[in-house]
Amino acid sequence: MDLYLVIATFVGALLAIVFAIIMAKRVLRFDEGTEKMKSISASIRKGANAYLKRQYTIVSIFFVGMFAILSVMALFDMLTPYVPFAFITGGFFSGLSGFIGMKIATAANARTANACRVGLNKGLRVAFSAGSVMGFTVVGLGLLDISIWFFLLRFVFDIDDPSLITSTMLTFGMGASSMALFARVGGGIFTKAADVGADLVGKVEAGIPEDDPRNPACIADNVGDNVGDVAGMGADLYESYVGSVISASALGVAAFAQVEGKGMAFGFKAMAIPMLIAAVGIICSILGTFFVRTKENATQKMLLKSLSRGTNLAAIIIAGAAFPIIYFILGDGSMSNIGYYFAILAGLVAGVLIGLSTEYFTSDSYKPTKNLASKSETGSATIIIGGLGLGMLSTVLPIVIVGACILVAYYISTGSLTESSGPSGGLYGIALAAVGMLSTLGITLATDAYGPVADNAGGIAEMSGLEPEVRQRTDALDALGNTTAATGKGFAIGSAALTALALIASYIDKTGFKYEAFDIMDPCVLVGIFVGACLPFVFAALTMNAVGRAAQSVVIEVRRQFKKIVGLLDGKAEADYARCVDLCTKASLKEMILPTVVAVVTPVLVGLILGVDGVVGMLGGATVTGFLLAIFMSNSGGAWDNAKKYIESGVHGGKGSDQHKAAVVGDTVGDPFKDTSGPAINILIKLLSMVSIVFAGLVMASPIANYFFG
Amino acid sequence: MDLYLVIATFVGALLAIVFAIIMAKRVLRFDEGTEKMKSISASIRKGANAYLKRQYTIVSIFFVGMFAILSVMALFDMLTPYVPFAFITGGFFSGLSGFIGMKIATAANARTANACRVGLNKGLRVAFSAGSVMGFTVVGLGLLDISIWFFLLRFVFDIDDPSLITSTMLTFGMGASSMALFARVGGGIFTKAADVGADLVGKVEAGIPEDDPRNPACIADNVGDNVGDVAGMGADLYESYVGSVISASALGVAAFAQVEGKGMAFGFKAMAIPMLIAAVGIICSILGTFFVRTKENATQKMLLKSLSRGTNLAAIIIAGAAFPIIYFILGDGSMSNIGYYFAILAGLVAGVLIGLSTEYFTSDSYKPTKNLASKSETGSATIIIGGLGLGMLSTVLPIVIVGACILVAYYISTGSLTESSGPSGGLYGIALAAVGMLSTLGITLATDAYGPVADNAGGIAEMSGLEPEVRQRTDALDALGNTTAATGKGFAIGSAALTALALIASYIDKTGFKYEAFDIMDPCVLVGIFVGACLPFVFAALTMNAVGRAAQSVVIEVRRQFKKIVGLLDGKAEADYARCVDLCTKASLKEMILPTVVAVVTPVLVGLILGVDGVVGMLGGATVTGFLLAIFMSNSGGAWDNAKKYIESGVHGGKGSDQHKAAVVGDTVGDPFKDTSGPAINILIKLLSMVSIVFAGLVMASPIANYFFG
Repeated sequence: MDLYLVIATFVGALLAIVFAIIMAKRVLRFDEGTEKMKSISASIRKGANAYLKRQYTIVSIFFVGMFAILSVMALFDMLTPYVPFAFITGGFFSGLSGFIGMKIATAANARTANACRVGLNKGLRVAFSAGSVMGFTVVGLGLLDISIWFFLLRFVFDIDDPSLITSTMLTFGMGASSMALFARVGGGIFTKAADVGADLVGKVEAGIPEDDPRNPACIADNVGDNVGDVAGMGADLYESYVGSVISASALGVAAFAQVEGKGMAFGFKAMAIPMLIAAVGIICSILGTFFVRTKENATQKMLLKSLSRGTNLAAIIIAGAAFPIIYFILGDGSMSNIGYYFAILAGLVAGVLIGLSTEYFTSDSYKPTKNLASKSETGSATIIIGGLGLGMLSTVLPIVIVGACILVAYYISTGSLTESSGPSGGLYGIALAAVGMLSTLGITLATDAYGPVADNAGGIAEMSGLEPEVRQRTDALDALGNTTAATGKGFAIGSAALTALALIASYIDKTGFKYEAFDIMDPCVLVGIFVGACLPFVFAALTMNAVGRAAQSVVIEVRRQFKKIVGLLDGKAEADYARCVDLCTKASLKEMILPTVVAVVTPVLVGLILGVDGVVGMLGGATVTGFLLAIFMSNSGGAWDNAKKYIESGVHGGKGSDQHKAAVVGDTVGDPFKDTSGPAINILIKLLSMVSIVFAGLVMASPIANYFFG
Repeated sequence: MDLYLVIATFVGALLAIVFAIIMAKRVLRFDEGTEKMKSISASIRKGANAYLKRQYTIVSIFFVGMFAILSVMALFDMLTPYVPFAFITGGFFSGLSGFIGMKIATAANARTANACRVGLNKGLRVAFSAGSVMGFTVVGLGLLDISIWFFLLRFVFDIDDPSLITSTMLTFGMGASSMALFARVGGGIFTKAADVGADLVGKVEAGIPEDDPRNPACIADNVGDNVGDVAGMGADLYESYVGSVISASALGVAAFAQVEGKGMAFGFKAMAIPMLIAAVGIICSILGTFFVRTKENATQKMLLKSLSRGTNLAAIIIAGAAFPIIYFILGDGSMSNIGYYFAILAGLVAGVLIGLSTEYFTSDSYKPTKNLASKSETGSATIIIGGLGLGMLSTVLPIVIVGACILVAYYISTGSLTESSGPSGGLYGIALAAVGMLSTLGITLATDAYGPVADNAGGIAEMSGLEPEVRQRTDALDALGNTTAATGKGFAIGSAALTALALIASYIDKTGFKYEAFDIMDPCVLVGIFVGACLPFVFAALTMNAVGRAAQSVVIEVRRQFKKIVGLLDGKAEADYARCVDLCTKASLKEMILPTVVAVVTPVLVGLILGVDGVVGMLGGATVTGFLLAIFMSNSGGAWDNAKKYIESGVHGGKGSDQHKAAVVGDTVGDPFKDTSGPAINILIKLLSMVSIVFAGLVMASPIANYFFG
């Protein structure tokens, strides 16, 4: 069984990587266009490369430090000796996912713009292929890391206790989460500082359009899309994917450890399920991509349909394919553990429903965003109030959906349809729901990641002075990307909540309190909940303030260039783009450190003071508030963005009107909401659990907690 | 013992009421000023009266309906027969507190303006006396209701089981909370709709100053201060005060029911403590008011000092007086239960510290608000982002303070310093901390409630064309009020969190799950937490959207009048003030219904579906997120308000500059934050618990929850 498992996951990983390479080659076959386009694309590439290089330098200091700490802990037998190495590989692969995504995106931007000169359809093909490279790189590298470690631990180090294997694998999750947080926060601050800074001086003060080459921050803005929306997202989703699989594996082992007469072999089976679902999900995703095609001269609606056809088909295939996996492996060819199949199904359905709810609240095809746009009639204050209200209200549906998913997954996994009963079985069910939700990540991420490529293509079209219809086509692609991104966000947020719960369960399992209840009215649990619930607020505040500070420094620099460089605004002199890129790089790298350190240090501190009870409370509080805040901020931001675009389409006075100006204020507030703070919170809630798991040994030995509250 | 208790609380209540009457007479002795001032004041009074009359009509329909429902439940033995009547009296007294506060405020506004013509000091005396009427009416009526019901239940209906008495008294808490929520939400929507509407057209579009008589919404704006900031706050704090006392009493009975050999008599003693602390607190507050005096021609700093002297002195006296109460009553003249004294002390200290933290984050004497004001340099988007970040970050200190207070109060009440051990004793300690925090409410509310009176006085000064120095003086008083209001808010928010926890404990006690843990990882508890955590977001969204809608209708009406009434903007014709008042009244009363219904219906629904586990989770989730959201919204709003005032004082371009306009946008967004949504959330989290307690019998009989999750 174990060997087949390694082979299966390895093959899945390989398929994804090969597919990504084929797609990358397809992208590179296209032409980059005019000399001007090539040179702009090269500048963007240069800036993005320089940023990532410096980011990885800083991050590696953190990783070396953590490696040292973990090694010391391993020396004192608080951890297994594999842990420090697992931690490093998680970080490495997560960073690599972001790096490859960024490479292909910066190679595809000019090519997409050039393809759009021929037609919308050709542009879609280039951009979607680039998105696919990213999507399949993430899942491929994720599964590769998992299969390599499983192979090493099982066959090289010859460990036959599955729970020892999963507990080591959880620590590469911590590496991946740390890297993802750095990438999301740093990239998110970069992209929004450049965006907000460029808009505030360029659009509002100087009155020049977006992506105008006279704006000194315009290259920085486009670099930002790559390091934030691409490299950041790649690292982020790598973390989500790997986290959901390994936490489910860990719980599977715990669940079947309780079933009498099952033994180790069955533990391996339960552990294998999430990995196999992931591997089969890759095949389904590849199949799905073949259905993303459309006629020449297709309307935007038809394009959207062709994308949805791909993702829906992949979901339907995996829904079918998961059945035999459970039936033959967990059920040994009988219906005896079929309940877990329905847990996976519940996750898949919940992901789709959350995506639909996000789309309803943020797309200008529906009432909420249309309504929000009408609030621009009475100025920026009312559109801000309206957007905040919209985001807060939009938390209801996802809460109900996730709540229902938790209940269904839990009770169907503890009921008569399964052999494992009790809490462990139920929690394994919840974890499998998260895996189900992310099983088709390859294709959903492809439809998500092509958005920033199209956005960049638009910038290049504008800066290199291509015909207006090219910009119109890239805008159409970009708008389409906004809608698919909404669906993608639904999966990311929903799976984050479920995975975080699974990780809390793993933490409880690891600390040995398996059968003990963590009473919500116990003062340590209670204070833990308060502290944990506060963390996403703090985190959002730190990242928003960082964007504000960095943006202000961009504003000052752009103003300076407008004043000092003679002839810049008349188009007779060239702006010093590199300076703005450099400024954003320095500012964002400086600002990314504090939030990440808070995320790593707090769980340890809370554990040392309040003990395991406090940590469980903290993780619960952070997961719940983090989920709410992430949805609120993402949806408010998305709705403001689309309300602005809706007004630009000609309603409520159109572009340049007072209403439009009010909507731009809303969009600017929404920028850090949806692209910096919101997505980073998803990572935060998982990183907190991962850190808690790794430092559990230290916490349990804490003299403070034992003295006061033991 | 019981009889002495009734007498003591009755005397305390009477003292407060007599003191309020004396203060009211003092206010009425002053002159209302010119004919113009009298007529304006009369218009405001008329509008406020008309609003309250209609509000009470609508609310009474709700109360009649609830009375019927509760009566039916009593018939089926799900409740004691006293409950429906207790529910009604709670609502009645809460409404009465608001009504009396509003009466005296509308009588004092012109008198304060007129007194300010003589000097700042005289103005302070009138406004502070009016605030005292409100403060002592609230505590007086609160304690009166408590003592009457205790007398009736104990001596007329001859109940000798203290837990039966407290469970009935908890239901008049539900009446008070329902009324408070209606008053806060309705009044909050009215005041902010009028304020935002008046500002958006008057200040921004027409360019006329605040409170200009040419603005058709200016009377409505001043009416709003009275129905929102006065009547709403009165009902709100009545609810907080009564809620903290009765929840502590209920837990006291529960705690000592576990102590062997103590019996009923000791149960009554534990129950008496919160009431006695409240009664003694009234005396301390009255003593404190005598120290609020200052020299003629005092500076603003000296005025603030004189106010703080009063509140600090009251706190110090009660800190001393609480010792003998615990020593002689709970300790029977020994140190045996002295731990509870330190729990009370912890609450007092925590209240002061939260107030200081609020002041630090929202006063323009400190870095955060100064920093926020500087963000106006780059426009309204950056000041909005900065304010949201500031508010979110400002949750940390209160969380740490409340967390420390919970731990201290709990562990000191279960340790060697007390006889009652185990969870009940600890929860009683937490409840006593809340009582300690609110014990000097008489004087803290007085320093808080005089703010809106000064605000109104400023409006009357402006509208009746008094000398500019009068407006300067009322502005000085108003600014002072902002600082004291920050302290007041600290007490309100902190006590709300602790009281809500005490109420959850009462709920658990009532449902008979006393020794059972509510596991945070149990799916019903978990989903309950998710749903509960979502409620404050929904509630904030509903109330903000309501303000937005109502404000928009005011904008349209004001624009109409500016257009249709010839000569209005030149001061040659009079505006139709009554129409705006009427519009706000209708809109706010319509909008207040949905949020309140959500608050009452959700706990019952959650209970019926998820059972008691779900309800406990929901209450916990709502308390934690509600606490965070309330602090975030109040502090963001306060900081924006003061940043605007700071700019108006001449920095960053001063009044009329672009920076000022940006700050006005911030202030407008902050208006519903700090005066509608934020304070209402405090009530919400307690009302949820109260409703859960009253409907516990129904929930436990739920066939759905029993079938699925039983």
